[in-house]
Amino acid sequence: MWKPDRLSAQPLYQQIANDLERRISYGEFPPGAMLPSERKLAEQLGVNRSTVILAYAELRSLGIIESRSGSGTRVSKYKWGATPKHTPNWHRYVEGGSFLPNLPFLRRIREALQQNPELIDFASGELASDLAPAEEINALMKVNQYTEYLGYNHPQGYAPLRKSLVQYLHQHRDIQTTDSSILITSGSQQSLYLITQCLLAPGDAVAIEDPSYCYSLPMFQSAGLRLFRLPVDHRGVRPEGIRSLYKKHRIKMVFVNPNFQNPTGTLLDEERRNELLRVTSELGLPIVEDDPFSLTAYDGASRPPLKSIDAMGSVIYIGSFSKIAASGLRVGWMVAPNSVVERLADARQQMDFGLSIVPQKVAEQFLNSDYFQPHLERLRMRLLYKRDLLIEALRKELPGLVSFMVPQGGLHLWCKIIPEVNDHRLLEEAIRRGIVFVPGSVYGSDSGYVRFTYGRSKADEIEPGISKFAEALRSVLS
Amino acid sequence: MWKPDRLSAQPLYQQIANDLERRISYGEFPPGAMLPSERKLAEQLGVNRSTVILAYAELRSLGIIESRSGSGTRVSKYKWGATPKHTPNWHRYVEGGSFLPNLPFLRRIREALQQNPELIDFASGELASDLAPAEEINALMKVNQYTEYLGYNHPQGYAPLRKSLVQYLHQHRDIQTTDSSILITSGSQQSLYLITQCLLAPGDAVAIEDPSYCYSLPMFQSAGLRLFRLPVDHRGVRPEGIRSLYKKHRIKMVFVNPNFQNPTGTLLDEERRNELLRVTSELGLPIVEDDPFSLTAYDGASRPPLKSIDAMGSVIYIGSFSKIAASGLRVGWMVAPNSVVERLADARQQMDFGLSIVPQKVAEQFLNSDYFQPHLERLRMRLLYKRDLLIEALRKELPGLVSFMVPQGGLHLWCKIIPEVNDHRLLEEAIRRGIVFVPGSVYGSDSGYVRFTYGRSKADEIEPGISKFAEALRSVLS
Ligand SMILES: Cc1ncc(COP(=O)(O)O)c(C=O)c1O
Ligand SMILES: Cc1ncc(COP(=O)(O)O)c(C=O)c1O
Repeated sequence: MWKPDRLSAQPLYQQIANDLERRISYGEFPPGAMLPSERKLAEQLGVNRSTVILAYAELRSLGIIESRSGSGTRVSKYKWGATPKHTPNWHRYVEGGSFLPNLPFLRRIREALQQNPELIDFASGELASDLAPAEEINALMKVNQYTEYLGYNHPQGYAPLRKSLVQYLHQHRDIQTTDSSILITSGSQQSLYLITQCLLAPGDAVAIEDPSYCYSLPMFQSAGLRLFRLPVDHRGVRPEGIRSLYKKHRIKMVFVNPNFQNPTGTLLDEERRNELLRVTSELGLPIVEDDPFSLTAYDGASRPPLKSIDAMGSVIYIGSFSKIAASGLRVGWMVAPNSVVERLADARQQMDFGLSIVPQKVAEQFLNSDYFQPHLERLRMRLLYKRDLLIEALRKELPGLVSFMVPQGGLHLWCKIIPEVNDHRLLEEAIRRGIVFVPGSVYGSDSGYVRFTYGRSKADEIEPGISKFAEALRSVLS
Repeated sequence: MWKPDRLSAQPLYQQIANDLERRISYGEFPPGAMLPSERKLAEQLGVNRSTVILAYAELRSLGIIESRSGSGTRVSKYKWGATPKHTPNWHRYVEGGSFLPNLPFLRRIREALQQNPELIDFASGELASDLAPAEEINALMKVNQYTEYLGYNHPQGYAPLRKSLVQYLHQHRDIQTTDSSILITSGSQQSLYLITQCLLAPGDAVAIEDPSYCYSLPMFQSAGLRLFRLPVDHRGVRPEGIRSLYKKHRIKMVFVNPNFQNPTGTLLDEERRNELLRVTSELGLPIVEDDPFSLTAYDGASRPPLKSIDAMGSVIYIGSFSKIAASGLRVGWMVAPNSVVERLADARQQMDFGLSIVPQKVAEQFLNSDYFQPHLERLRMRLLYKRDLLIEALRKELPGLVSFMVPQGGLHLWCKIIPEVNDHRLLEEAIRRGIVFVPGSVYGSDSGYVRFTYGRSKADEIEPGISKFAEALRSVLS
C-alpha cells in the first residue's frame, strides 16, 4: 500500500490528498462511494489523524469529496457526476512552481489603484505622463521608417541601439565600452532577473543595501538567494560590512544603487565609492550597479558611476530609460564582461526571444535626436519643482511629525514618521482618503518609514495628497 | 581545519579550489608563496590526489597559481601583483546558475548565420521579410497617435489589445473568452517559459510530442522537468500513451502543437483531438495548446483549436503574431483560467515588468485594420508557393534519397533522409556550401531527419539552396 514520503518537501496532508484524488479518478472510489474514516485512514498510513483531517479538508475545498456529520465522507456525486471528467485542479498548479507572489503591500497598492484610478499616486516609482517624452516619441515615429526586417533580433538586442548606447555611456556616464559588451533588456528589472537567475545558484548569499529596492522584489527570494544587508546612511551604503559578510557567508555578489538610491534618495559619497571598489576587488567580488536615476540630478552634474572607475572589471552596470524617459518603453541595458553578456543573452532567448524591435528603434532614435537633451533638462526642472512642492506640503501639514533628507535627484523622498505608527493601518487609512504610498518595510526597513514618489503625481495633486496623508496619519495616532 | 563537504552538490575539487582561492585572497598564501604539494594537501584534506590535481588545474586556468615542473606550485605573482586585487572569476559565475545553455546544434547554426549573413537560411523558424507586413505596420505607425500614457502597463498587458484579441479569437479561432482571461506575452516563447517556471516545479513530469519544438528548448530541462514522449505520426500526436504516463510517472501537463506541428507539419485529426480531450479531462490533466501556425492553412480553412471544444476548461491556449505577422514584434498571448493568468502576470512583473506598450499598440492597430485579412491571404499564397518550390527542388535534386509528407500549412517541411547519415557532418558540409537547416535530432527525433523551413528564405534561393544541400548530402554519403 502507498505511504506518504516523510522526506518529501511536500506536506504529508498534501501527498495524501493527491493520492486519494488519483485513486478517485481511477474509479477505486466511484462517485458517491464512502471513504475510510479519518481514524482508519490515519492508522493505515501511519500518520496523525489531524493530517488526514487536513487532507480531507483539501479535497472538500476542491469539491471532490463531501462530508456530512454522522454519515461520514463520500466521493462527491456532482463533481464526478455522469462522466468521470474533471477540470484540472488549477488551484494546485497556481500554488506550485518556485515563483513567489508579489509582496502583500504591493499587491494591495496595485489593487487599490486598479479599483480607483483617481487615487493620488505617491506609490508608483515612475514618471507622470507630463514628464514622459510622449510627443517627441510620437513625432519620431511619424517621420521614421520601420520597413526593414522585422524578424528575430540579435540575442543581445538591436545593433544600432547598442552602438548608440556606447556613445551615450561615454558621453553621459563616462563609461568606456563596446557594443559587444552591451545587452539590451526589458528594463533594469529584466537585468536583475537575468543576473539572479543565471549567474547565481539557489543557496548563494548576496549583499544588498538596507533599505533597498531589491528587497521589494520577491525575485531574489524566488531565486533562492540568501540576502545580507549593508546599512545605508546619509552618505549612502556603508561598505565596511562586506568583508565580514564574505568571511561568514561567502557572499557572491553585492547589489548597489549608488545614485539617488531607491528608496532613500541618497548619493553614495566619493570616499565610499572608492572603498567599495577596493574591498570588492580584493575579494574578487562582482558588484551590480543599478543606476536608473543618475541623469535626473537636479543640478545637472554628472556623478560618475562605479563602472567609470572600475579598473578591475568587477562591476556589472545596469541602466534604463524608465526613469528618464518612459517606463512603458521597457528598454534597459547592461554593461558586463563579454562572457557574461553572452551567457545572459543565450538564457534570455529561452525566456522570451528578446525584446520587440519597435521600442528599441524608438529608443535609438530618441537617444540620437535633438529632443533628448532638452527633454532631460525639462525633466530635471519639473522633478525639482515637484520635490519642492512635496517638501513644502510636508512641512506645512506635518510639522514635527516627520523627518527626511532632501533628495538631490531621482523621484523619491524617504520619510521617517516620528511617532510610532502601524504601517498597515496607516496605508489603509490613506487609501480610504484617496492616496497611496509605499510603506518603508517593503524595502526592508523598520516600520515607521514611508516612500513618497513625487515623480508620478501631477503637480497640483501633491499638496492635497499630503493633506490627506496627514489626516490618515492623525487618525491612526489618535 | 577546513574539509570539503562530501554531501554538497559541488564537486570536491571545486570546493578545494574555492577554499584555496579564498585563503590566497586573504593573504594566507601571499603572491609567490609555495603551496603544499599535491600529495600533502590530499592527505590533509582526506581526498584523492587526483582531486587536488584537478583543483590546482582549475586555479592555474584562472591565472591564480603557477606550476613549474620540479619546483612545485606557487601563488601567481602577476595576478596577485603589487596589490592583492583581482577581477571576479566571471567564468565561475557564468557556469553557475540553473539555466542551461542552448543546444550545440542551435548555437552552431546561429554562429554560422552571424559569420555569414549570405547563407541560405532553411533553419530560422520565421517569415522572410517579404512575407512580413512591414509596410502596413509602417503606414499604421505614421497615422496613429502614441501620445498617451507611456507608464508601466497593466500586468496582463495593454487593455485594448486584450479586447481586440477577444474578438480575434472568437472570429478566427472559435474561442469564447474575456479580456481578463488573456495574458499578453513576449511571444509563445514567454508563454511557455511562464508555464514551465510558475505552474510546474522541479521534478514534475510532463508529456510532450515526439518529435517536438519543445525538445529544442533547454527551458524545459532548466525548469527541472522530466520529459516523456508521445509519438507523432501522419495524423498528429497519438494520445493513447497519456494514461500510462500518468499512471507511471504522474505527468502533470501535456504540451501539444496540433495545427501544422513544428517540426513535422502534421495536422492532428479530429478523432484524436476528441480522444486527447477525453483522456486528459478524465485525469484532470491540463493541456497546453501551442497554436502559432493555424492561420497559415493554405486552403484558408480554419481548424478549430482544442480550446474551442474544451468543455472542461483543461486547455491553456497559446497564440502569437510571430508566424503570421512578424517575430520581431514579440507579441503573443495566452488564454487560461483567471487564477492562472493572474498568477503568471504577477510572476512576469518580477521578470521584466511586462511588454513595451509600443508593439502592443502596433499589434492592436494591425489586427483591427483593413490590412490584416489581405495580409493573411497573401501570406498563405506565398507560403504555398515557396512550399511548392521546395518540394519541386527536393524531387529534382534528391530523387530516392528523401521522403516527406506535404505540409498543408505552416513554414516547415520535415524530411527523412533515406540512407544512413551523420547529422553533424551533414550540417557542417551544408554550412561549407552556404546553407543551413536544423537537424531533426534537435527536436528529439532519431538522426537522419531534417527540418527545412521554407518561410524564411527568398523564393529564388530555394532551388539553389536544395542543390547545395544535395551536394552536401552526397559528400557525406560517398
Ligand atoms: C533601483 C531600481 N532598479 C530597477 C528598477 C526597475 O525599473 P525598470 O525595469 O523599469 O528599468 C527600479 C524601478 O523602480 C528601480 O527603482
Ligand atoms: C511551436 C512553436 N511554439 C512557439 C514558438 C515561439 O515563437 P514566438 O515566441 O516567436 O511566438 C515557435 C517558434 O518557432 C514554435 O514553432
